Amino acid sequence: MMRALDAAREAAAMGEVPVGAVVVSDGEVIASAANATRSPPDPTGHAEIRALRMAAEALGKGRLNGCDLYVTLEPCAMCAGAISHARIARLYYAASDPKGGAVEHGARVFEQAQCLHRPEVYSGMGEAEAAELLRGFFRERR
Amino acid sequence: MMRALDAAREAAAMGEVPVGAVVVSDGEVIASAANATRSPPDPTGHAEIRALRMAAEALGKGRLNGCDLYVTLEPCAMCAGAISHARIARLYYAASDPKGGAVEHGARVFEQAQCLHRPEVYSGMGEAEAAELLRGFFRERR
Repeated sequence: MMRALDAAREAAAMGEVPVGAVVVSDGEVIASAANATRSPPDPTGHAEIRALRMAAEALGKGRLNGCDLYVTLEPCAMCAGAISHARIARLYYAASDPKGGAVEHGARVFEQAQCLHRPEVYSGMGEAEAAELLRGFFRERR
Repeated sequence: MMRALDAAREAAAMGEVPVGAVVVSDGEVIASAANATRSPPDPTGHAEIRALRMAAEALGKGRLNGCDLYVTLEPCAMCAGAISHARIARLYYAASDPKGGAVEHGARVFEQAQCLHRPEVYSGMGEAEAAELLRGFFRERR
């Protein structure tokens, strides 16, 4: 999660909402990504989506069975759907997101009967730091 | 929708689940994409995601306000989330997808109170053809 927080700081430095994600396979980081939606413009450029794509490329397969995803913020519906498609085994996220999260809030993607793959979900590690990064970012923009 | 069906046929020819998507801006097709999850492996390579990314690049902005998305199958949670992030104005889809769709089924992404942008949604145009493409594809693989 420290690596994911580092990626979130990189996002902030680029003027992006500070969220970072890391994919781990067999104890090794195989992908690390910052939220990047602006340059080039990409409405799907959330850290999770970018990390999953990188991990699939690194492993040469789209199904990341056995891999863990660490992300600094509760995934949205788009990212939760992608996590399920990618067959991520364990999802760790730092801060909850009542406004945009779709794991424990809103669409609750993994709780749907039609969800074909549900990762194990763990939350709260690094929460204070992840939340402070987000608060600081939005405070500066006001 | 004819263009989206053409893209779906291209997907089938590549051994991919036949789904196609097209983004239209001011009456002009600015992006057209087939489902492409295998080569390179990309668990996020659904037609909608690919079309939205292309459209954002074409317009030079991540918010596709005023644009329409045509897709041959009801979007999943990942794609519905992306459609909302991209601020698509109108979503047209051909076939319903009780197993994986998240517009009128399952996560019902646009119906969530937290959903910040809801497109207008129209369905059913080209439904028979889109459904037959999918049925034919899965019949051959059995």
